[in-house]
Amino acid sequence: MKQKIGFMGLGVMGSPMAANILRAGYPVTVYNRSPQKGEELVKLGAKRASSPKLLVEEADVTIAMVTGPDALAELLWGPDGAAQAFDAHKVFINMSTVPPRFTGELRDKLLPTGVTFIDAPVSGSKKPAEDATLVILAGGRKEDVDTCKPLLETMGKKVVFCGEVGQGSMMKLAINLLLGVMMEGLCEVVNFGKSAGLTLDAMFEVVSNGPLNAALYQMKAASLRENDFPVNFPLKHMAKDLKFLVDTAYDLGAPVPVGQMLLHLYRIGVAQDWGDLDFAAIMKVLNHLNPKM
Amino acid sequence: MKQKIGFMGLGVMGSPMAANILRAGYPVTVYNRSPQKGEELVKLGAKRASSPKLLVEEADVTIAMVTGPDALAELLWGPDGAAQAFDAHKVFINMSTVPPRFTGELRDKLLPTGVTFIDAPVSGSKKPAEDATLVILAGGRKEDVDTCKPLLETMGKKVVFCGEVGQGSMMKLAINLLLGVMMEGLCEVVNFGKSAGLTLDAMFEVVSNGPLNAALYQMKAASLRENDFPVNFPLKHMAKDLKFLVDTAYDLGAPVPVGQMLLHLYRIGVAQDWGDLDFAAIMKVLNHLNPKM
Amino acid sequence: MKQKIGFMGLGVMGSPMAANILRAGYPVTVYNRSPQKGEELVKLGAKRASSPKLLVEEADVTIAMVTGPDALAELLWGPDGAAQAFDAHKVFINMSTVPPRFTGELRDKLLPTGVTFIDAPVSGSKKPAEDATLVILAGGRKEDVDTCKPLLETMGKKVVFCGEVGQGSMMKLAINLLLGVMMEGLCEVVNFGKSAGLTLDAMFEVVSNGPLNAALYQMKAASLRENDFPVNFPLKHMAKDLKFLVDTAYDLGAPVPVGQMLLHLYRIGVAQDWGDLDFAAIMKVLNHLNPKM
Amino acid sequence: MKQKIGFMGLGVMGSPMAANILRAGYPVTVYNRSPQKGEELVKLGAKRASSPKLLVEEADVTIAMVTGPDALAELLWGPDGAAQAFDAHKVFINMSTVPPRFTGELRDKLLPTGVTFIDAPVSGSKKPAEDATLVILAGGRKEDVDTCKPLLETMGKKVVFCGEVGQGSMMKLAINLLLGVMMEGLCEVVNFGKSAGLTLDAMFEVVSNGPLNAALYQMKAASLRENDFPVNFPLKHMAKDLKFLVDTAYDLGAPVPVGQMLLHLYRIGVAQDWGDLDFAAIMKVLNHLNPKM
Repeated sequence: MKQKIGFMGLGVMGSPMAANILRAGYPVTVYNRSPQKGEELVKLGAKRASSPKLLVEEADVTIAMVTGPDALAELLWGPDGAAQAFDAHKVFINMSTVPPRFTGELRDKLLPTGVTFIDAPVSGSKKPAEDATLVILAGGRKEDVDTCKPLLETMGKKVVFCGEVGQGSMMKLAINLLLGVMMEGLCEVVNFGKSAGLTLDAMFEVVSNGPLNAALYQMKAASLRENDFPVNFPLKHMAKDLKFLVDTAYDLGAPVPVGQMLLHLYRIGVAQDWGDLDFAAIMKVLNHLNPKM
Repeated sequence: MKQKIGFMGLGVMGSPMAANILRAGYPVTVYNRSPQKGEELVKLGAKRASSPKLLVEEADVTIAMVTGPDALAELLWGPDGAAQAFDAHKVFINMSTVPPRFTGELRDKLLPTGVTFIDAPVSGSKKPAEDATLVILAGGRKEDVDTCKPLLETMGKKVVFCGEVGQGSMMKLAINLLLGVMMEGLCEVVNFGKSAGLTLDAMFEVVSNGPLNAALYQMKAASLRENDFPVNFPLKHMAKDLKFLVDTAYDLGAPVPVGQMLLHLYRIGVAQDWGDLDFAAIMKVLNHLNPKM
Repeated sequence: MKQKIGFMGLGVMGSPMAANILRAGYPVTVYNRSPQKGEELVKLGAKRASSPKLLVEEADVTIAMVTGPDALAELLWGPDGAAQAFDAHKVFINMSTVPPRFTGELRDKLLPTGVTFIDAPVSGSKKPAEDATLVILAGGRKEDVDTCKPLLETMGKKVVFCGEVGQGSMMKLAINLLLGVMMEGLCEVVNFGKSAGLTLDAMFEVVSNGPLNAALYQMKAASLRENDFPVNFPLKHMAKDLKFLVDTAYDLGAPVPVGQMLLHLYRIGVAQDWGDLDFAAIMKVLNHLNPKM
Repeated sequence: MKQKIGFMGLGVMGSPMAANILRAGYPVTVYNRSPQKGEELVKLGAKRASSPKLLVEEADVTIAMVTGPDALAELLWGPDGAAQAFDAHKVFINMSTVPPRFTGELRDKLLPTGVTFIDAPVSGSKKPAEDATLVILAGGRKEDVDTCKPLLETMGKKVVFCGEVGQGSMMKLAINLLLGVMMEGLCEVVNFGKSAGLTLDAMFEVVSNGPLNAALYQMKAASLRENDFPVNFPLKHMAKDLKFLVDTAYDLGAPVPVGQMLLHLYRIGVAQDWGDLDFAAIMKVLNHLNPKM
């Protein structure tokens, strides 16, 4: 018999994720702070809980997908908070993106409740959430992650076991470095190429047809062509993530010379008030250093 | 009626490229400094010329694909050199990789002969040369490139017009920056991730299933896994290309902060005597800075 | 009539500083955790207190000069701690080096006691402490610093008013960046010059006779000549200070591109286990990147 | 008996240098392309030559102090050029600043004449030239430099033997790196400090009274205070020298991570059209990256 699922956080990501669990035949109870959300899930068969605590009482496995540490803390330890109902028979999976350090603190605070805790941020945004093609970065005890794998696979195309609790967040941090490197790298090449008289179209034609091509580049082509950066992942969040990565690397003694340089450049972008643009607007920082463009 | 083709340089790249032209039905005459090469092409129907000059006399379009500026200069201006037979009715396409500056000098030296000159280095190595899936970076007059396009397309899947003569070489330089950025970026992430307790396999699983995936990463996975770097593109050549790129960017005023950092790192690799390993051995440089690894 | 002084912390720096206050005619009471220290001060006329609290009760102005935040917290809030006896008629001057953030926390925790708080780290080490030639970096209310100036001048040749409480520590941080830049800069030049065939002696002769000369360079000449780095200011402390500076600069939005590069280099030094050598051992990091040396 | 001196180049540096040789009692013949210069030297007892060739014929030792490679080449190999009269009994000392590579070419081209060649650029500008307090960076055979030492000492306070011909230019390059590091370092600290609420005056007070103090900093204080950068050594020349240094370091395999970063920053300064300001205007580059300032 399938586990009973409690799902907290019905935003842009959470709603389609919960819907995919429902479609896979799990019984789902949902909770959202503002109750107007979730109507569609109810139509799909979800029950509603009137507090996080009541949601946990109904569920074998509770999933949280909210905007960050503060929202998560509120759900767990606020009035009628989820943590009050956690016990050794229950599982809690945090899929919200939070710093590795916060995940460590979470683990320590949840320990006395006896709840099984899994750390499972996702790689991918709205579209993959809808299409159930997220990549799920899971940290926890191997056997716990294995048990939850069928459930997690209803939301994503891939569940990657990353190590103990906290390593899911750590993986997300590492991958975001590659995201920053590739984005800035493309912009540095395009800015150089334009200075040298190459066209953006010709450069994209070469990249698109060779071994360097990546879906990321295709997603950002229009932004670079039109010098317009509607936000998908805000530049200021990339700066924040790089800061956290550089700090973590410092503690570990791992050299991140390019990561440091990116941090310098993204921080300039924030200082220029471009923090709310998409992180592809790192192009504007390079242009700012190159007034001929 | 198809143009008569002269092909100089029958090495790892040149031989399969000439074979693909033959298979497309063009009459081809070949020349190679050491005559033992080219037997297979003769079996496919190629004629042989006994000097570059005689080859050009036989051909409407002469193509060169040799190892660099010195070999090319020898073919053009050595004894019985090709340049002696160039005239205003003939076309010369240099597909060898040479610096943009050398291409500019070439153009100036060829001008008095009246030959139509096209600069067309390729992106891709042995396998794409055999499969006719190279990407060809063509610089020259638009109408000249268009005229040669059917010929060039026998060797590649894509002919990208890059601008006037020299811009083919410039494009190759720009793309090599992206190559360096992505390779070092992957290594920086992997080195960081391993320091943080993530496994290489887990990291590759995440990259492979998301928008950052690129064929390059799959090609280098085994090298990183086994810490063994059989050469495909030597690290010392990447250092040399980055040096040339940084110099060109300096002249243009285009900021390449990450390019400069890469140059610093690849130069350390050369100083450590890793120049003849594959350029993916930039991983060893990061490890060298991080003795815990 | 002169203020009564309480002095806590009789180490390498504190002892000569307290002696200079005594010699200037101030009545001084001293306290040190391990009571065997301070004999010479008693001979010079100092009284002893048996606890920080009793010391503060005896004094108008209490000075602390200890090794860092932990030792200071112990003196203030440990058993019979100094903070118990602080009130609105008393002054507390912290001359120990602590991070600006710690100074801010200190100010907040001391506020309820009513004590006047001055933040006054010093620039200079053992010899200037003995010779009363320290430079004292004072943060606090201007009138409070002015009142204490005659007292502070018994220990140093210069009292620099840096702004409100915390700005003394901030100044120390900023100056340490210049210290790091000049030290690494000298090493980078010497390493380059030696690679280029110049001798260390010739380089020092040029630097010593021109506008770039600084006492720092003369102090470090023997270390560079002998490749031996007896510790004065440990490399790991420079790494820590640079980390703090880069973090502070990030928060402020001030670009510190060279500071970031230094942090990268000093961190490599720590990873290579050179953290307990003098910070001039950054030379070893450059040599490590340049195996020909 | 004193050597007979020929002096070519009577500009801002050359005139006072020639005057100091005259005052020391040497017989001096002068030549300058525009003959209106040199009146004062004639009053002091100098003879005039009407061509470089005639000047060399009159002299045992010929000194050149001109603005760069082009002016020097004109004097040596232009019409009635100096090189025509060089022979094995004569000495030629080039005190003009030229790249090490140019000095190497000069040596090769002068070799057939048999002239003894010394490479002796100076550290110091107008004032030290007048006061005979230049530092002279001499490259050549040790015995040749020793023979000319009394002559060189009439112009400077110090003659530093740097090695064979070319090493004088190399020393100048190395020292200019330290000059760039110290200037940018000061600006980075001041920019950071101001962002953190410290005043320029307080920062200078601390620097001036400690082991980091250097005459350079005092010379640039007014510029930083008034944000006005009257040219002494143009920013674009610093960029050019750093470019040459980074290139030389690349060839040698000497890591210059901070030098590379400086090159990036100074090149931004040139791109922003600040190249004709003093090199202390690197402050403007940092401010440009930090729009709050």
